[in-house]
Amino acid sequence: FFSLLSIVSCNNAEKSNITNEQESQVFNIDSARKEIDRANLEFVDLFNKSDSIGLANMFTSDGKSMEPNEPAFVGRRAIQNHYSLVMNAGANKLGLVTTGLWGDSKMLAEEGEYTFIDKSGKQLDKGKYIVLWKIEDGEWKLFRDCYNSDLPVQH
Amino acid sequence: FFSLLSIVSCNNAEKSNITNEQESQVFNIDSARKEIDRANLEFVDLFNKSDSIGLANMFTSDGKSMEPNEPAFVGRRAIQNHYSLVMNAGANKLGLVTTGLWGDSKMLAEEGEYTFIDKSGKQLDKGKYIVLWKIEDGEWKLFRDCYNSDLPVQH
Repeated sequence: FFSLLSIVSCNNAEKSNITNEQESQVFNIDSARKEIDRANLEFVDLFNKSDSIGLANMFTSDGKSMEPNEPAFVGRRAIQNHYSLVMNAGANKLGLVTTGLWGDSKMLAEEGEYTFIDKSGKQLDKGKYIVLWKIEDGEWKLFRDCYNSDLPVQH
Repeated sequence: FFSLLSIVSCNNAEKSNITNEQESQVFNIDSARKEIDRANLEFVDLFNKSDSIGLANMFTSDGKSMEPNEPAFVGRRAIQNHYSLVMNAGANKLGLVTTGLWGDSKMLAEEGEYTFIDKSGKQLDKGKYIVLWKIEDGEWKLFRDCYNSDLPVQH
């Protein structure tokens, strides 16, 4: 009886052990970093070619874009409308650099710096951000994007 | 032999299972929410009684306060200096409400809304934030604090 019990409980235990190992194999912060780098390149590319629909689709369906000096834009439609206006304001170029990445397969928190220049290369803005990333439909998507400028308010 | 092997591998498997159970017992998002609520009450209390040293000590030693319209303040000394100036600017009152909390024992990401009123109760500012919390010296501390205003730029 003891030996049978051992085998039974052992099977359960081994099963959940394998699951844990598989999970830790699936998540690796260095691989995640590469995925986030790739996602940020795509974000910048979509922004810089004025594809507001593509950009909005990089957010989760319940994503929030927490922009300075206006209430947050919630959901892809609101985010797309907002970015469409920003894109129409001029052929300006966005740049992103990740300065920190933490988390696991459930959620990543990214810290970064952005630059914003006009078509002549003149700096319009620079600042910092925190993005929370979540996997939706098998891809890392922006769940929250909160940023602000390093520059004094322009009067 | 088979039965002995089972018992041995089972002991290992059970040990690591117990560890997993203990970890999941230690971390509970509802308990974490209470701890973050308590930490935010303390943050507000320290701010509203102009204790910039106490406030800076609520950040991790490598904490960053990512404030709008200036570069991030890095480390407790820079954060304390900054808050000291803000506190000296007037007897204004801060309010915080958590609107989302995600993560685990390694790191929590909090979404929230802030209000800022003067001593007569007039609204000076309101906005939104993402805070990344980390445990340091057994307590949840602010590792990153990034916020911005909902209000248009004041000219």
